[in-house]
Amino acid sequence: MRAEIIAIGSEILLGQIINSNAQFLSQELALLGIDCLFHTVVGDNPDRIKAAMSIAVERSDIIITTGGLGSTSDDLSLEAIAAFFNEPLVLRQEALQDIKRYFESRQIAMPISNEKQALLPKQALIIKNLAGTAPGMFWEINKKTIISFPGVPKEMKEMWSLEVKPLLLKKSKEKLIYKELKFYGIPEALLGEKVQDLLDLESPTVAPLASGMECKLRIACKSENIEYSKKEIQRIEDIIRQRVGEFIYGENEETLESVVIKHFKEKNLSLSLAESCTGGLISKRLTDIAGSSAVFKLGLVVYSNESKINILGVKAKTLKEKGAVSEECAIEMAQNALIKGQSDYALSVTGIAGPDGGSKEKPVGTIFMALIGKTSNIIKKFNFNEMKRNDIRWRISQEALNWLRRI
Amino acid sequence: MRAEIIAIGSEILLGQIINSNAQFLSQELALLGIDCLFHTVVGDNPDRIKAAMSIAVERSDIIITTGGLGSTSDDLSLEAIAAFFNEPLVLRQEALQDIKRYFESRQIAMPISNEKQALLPKQALIIKNLAGTAPGMFWEINKKTIISFPGVPKEMKEMWSLEVKPLLLKKSKEKLIYKELKFYGIPEALLGEKVQDLLDLESPTVAPLASGMECKLRIACKSENIEYSKKEIQRIEDIIRQRVGEFIYGENEETLESVVIKHFKEKNLSLSLAESCTGGLISKRLTDIAGSSAVFKLGLVVYSNESKINILGVKAKTLKEKGAVSEECAIEMAQNALIKGQSDYALSVTGIAGPDGGSKEKPVGTIFMALIGKTSNIIKKFNFNEMKRNDIRWRISQEALNWLRRI
Repeated sequence: MRAEIIAIGSEILLGQIINSNAQFLSQELALLGIDCLFHTVVGDNPDRIKAAMSIAVERSDIIITTGGLGSTSDDLSLEAIAAFFNEPLVLRQEALQDIKRYFESRQIAMPISNEKQALLPKQALIIKNLAGTAPGMFWEINKKTIISFPGVPKEMKEMWSLEVKPLLLKKSKEKLIYKELKFYGIPEALLGEKVQDLLDLESPTVAPLASGMECKLRIACKSENIEYSKKEIQRIEDIIRQRVGEFIYGENEETLESVVIKHFKEKNLSLSLAESCTGGLISKRLTDIAGSSAVFKLGLVVYSNESKINILGVKAKTLKEKGAVSEECAIEMAQNALIKGQSDYALSVTGIAGPDGGSKEKPVGTIFMALIGKTSNIIKKFNFNEMKRNDIRWRISQEALNWLRRI
Repeated sequence: MRAEIIAIGSEILLGQIINSNAQFLSQELALLGIDCLFHTVVGDNPDRIKAAMSIAVERSDIIITTGGLGSTSDDLSLEAIAAFFNEPLVLRQEALQDIKRYFESRQIAMPISNEKQALLPKQALIIKNLAGTAPGMFWEINKKTIISFPGVPKEMKEMWSLEVKPLLLKKSKEKLIYKELKFYGIPEALLGEKVQDLLDLESPTVAPLASGMECKLRIACKSENIEYSKKEIQRIEDIIRQRVGEFIYGENEETLESVVIKHFKEKNLSLSLAESCTGGLISKRLTDIAGSSAVFKLGLVVYSNESKINILGVKAKTLKEKGAVSEECAIEMAQNALIKGQSDYALSVTGIAGPDGGSKEKPVGTIFMALIGKTSNIIKKFNFNEMKRNDIRWRISQEALNWLRRI
C-alpha cells in the first residue's frame, strides 16, 4: 500500500512553522509497513488543495491530510477535498454534539463559527478529537482512503494513536518493527565504515541516523511474522555489539541522562554537581528524568568567582594563582560538592563557553572537568574549538553525562 | 514570482529527519518577497524526481531542490533534473578542482566516487560549497530558474547566504520586511480577539503565531520602498502596543531570559536562584545568554530536603511542619539564596513536578515561588493541572522569568 501526506497550511509555506506532522506520520506509516512516497505542503487555497488531491489520487492509495480543520474562514480543507470528489458536506449530528460538549465542559457557549467543523462527507467515519474541537475523518471513497487530521500536533497524534492507527492496522498485513541502538563517542563516518556491509542489507535494514553530536543505528524488519522480525533484529544487533558495542550507551528512548540515573539507581549511588560555565544544564538534564531524586542530591551553579569561594569553599589562593579555569579549581569544586551534598560522587565543570572570556593560554572552549568518588579522583581537559557558546555548553554536558555513565 | 521547494531524500519520507531545509528556505523567500506556494518531498528515485519537476514547471518560476548531491549511488538529483530537461551533464573542471582542493586541505586523496559531484549541466552556474564537497547549481533554462542545494543544512544555508540570495535579490524588486512582537501571559485566543481587525489587513499583514505557551505577532510589509515598509510596520505596532502592550515582553530574537538579563544589566542589579523541582532549568536559561555573568551570581539546586537544610539553611522545623512545598519553605530558600549569593534579588521555586510525589492537599503541579529583594518579599502559588513533568518544569521557568522581567 502506498501513502502520501498533504499538509495544508500557509504558515508552513511562509516558514513560520516546520512540518513536524509529516515526520511523525512518516515514522508511524513506516512502522505499519506502509510506504510513504511523497510529502506535499499547500496553502489554505481550495484550488491548490484540489490540485494536490488530483495528483495524489493518481499515485497513492492512502492520502493523509493535516491542517485546515479550524473554525475560521481560512479553514476549508474538508470543503476542498469533498468538492474534489464531487461529494457534499453534511451536518453530522454526532460531531456537532461532541463540539458542543467540548465547550460545555469549559463552561463556554459554543461559538457559531465552530459549527462548520461538524460538516463532513456523509459516508466519512468521524475521528473524535478529545483534545480540541475539530473532528477528523477516515473516508473510503473511489478506492482511496482519505484521512484528515487537524494541524495541531498534539491533537493529530492522539487521534492517530487512539483511532486511526488501529483502523490501518487492520488493512496492512505486514508490520515493521525496529530497534534503535544509540552511540556516543564515535564519529558518524567511522561508525558507517564499521557497519558498511550491514547498511547494504535488504532485510533487516540498518539505517544510520545522526543528530546533534550523537549517532544511532535503526535496525528494522518488515514481515507478517513478528517473532521472525524480532529474531532477525537480535541477530543483527549482536553483530553490531560485537564490533562497536563499547560506544553503545542505550537503546530506543534512552538518553545519556536516563542511562546515568538508571545506573546510579541500580547501584544505590548518589551524585552532586558543581557547575560553572554550564550554568545548571547538567543538573537540569539529570532532573529531567522522573525518579532522579533518588540519585541527585545537590547542584551548585557557582557562576561567579565569589560564589566559588563563599559557597563551594574553593581557596581564594587557588583562584588567584591558577584561575577559575584550572585543574586545581575543578578538583576543589568537586571535593567540596561531594562533602556538601554528602554524596558518593561529585562532578565539577569549569571553563570558558564564550563568546567572551578567552585568552591566549585559555581560549574559548577550554574546559576542565573533575570526577571525585570515595576512592577516586580524575581530571579531564577538553578544548572545544570553533564552536558556538550553547553548542559548547551542550557538548560539555554530553561529555559529562557519558563520563558518569561509564564509571 | 512564484517558487516551490522540492526536498529529495528517502530519509525524510521515512520520518528519520524533519524537513528543516524547507522551513529555512521558505522564510528566506518570504523575506525576498517571493511567494512559495508548494513544498514537496520525494525519494531518491529518478522517475519520481522527474515527476515532481514536471508538476513544478507547470506552476512555478523558481524551483529549489535540496538533497541528492552526494557521492553515493543513491545520489542522483542532478542526473534526474537534467534528464527531465533533456540536457546532458558534463564534467565541469572548475567544480572538479574545488572538490580536489577540499580533500587536499584535509590531507586525503579524493575518492573516485566524488568525481560525479562535478557533473553538472553545461550552462548551469556553479554554486561553490565551502563547507562540503557537493557544489550546487543556479540554472536558468526554459524560462525557469532551477536552484539545487546539497541536503546538509549547514552547507545549504551558507551557499544560500553567500551566493544564491544575492542572485535572487537582483531578480526581485519587492522586499518583505517584518517585525515580531512577543507576548507572554495572554491566551492566544484572547490576543486574536483584541487584534482581529488587524489580522484581516491586506498590507501590512499581521500574522499570529503560537509556539510553546507563548504567542507572537508578525507584522510584515512587502514593497519596493523599505522606508515606507518600516513606517507602516511602526504604525501597526503602535496600535498593537496601545491595546495589549502590557503583555509584550520583547521583539524579534529576544527571549524571556534575554530580556531579564538585559533589564537587570541596565539597572546594575544581580540575581541568585534557589531551585528545587526545576532542577537547574532557570539557571540554565539565564546562563544561555552571553554576558549573564554580570547579573547571575549563584544558583542552588537543592533537590533533596537535606540539601535544603544543609546548604540553604532552611529550618528543619519548617520542613517538618509545613513541608518542602510550602510558602514558608519558599521564603526561607529565597532569603538564604539572597544572602549566600550576596545579590540584589533572589528567586526560589519549590513544588511537585511529578509524575510522582503528589498528594490530596498538594497534588502534582502545586508550585510555590518566592521573590525577595532588599525591601520586597512576594510569594506566588501556582497549580498546573494535567500537565506532564517537563511541561510543568518549563512552564514554571516561563512564569519565573516573566516575573523577573516585570520587577
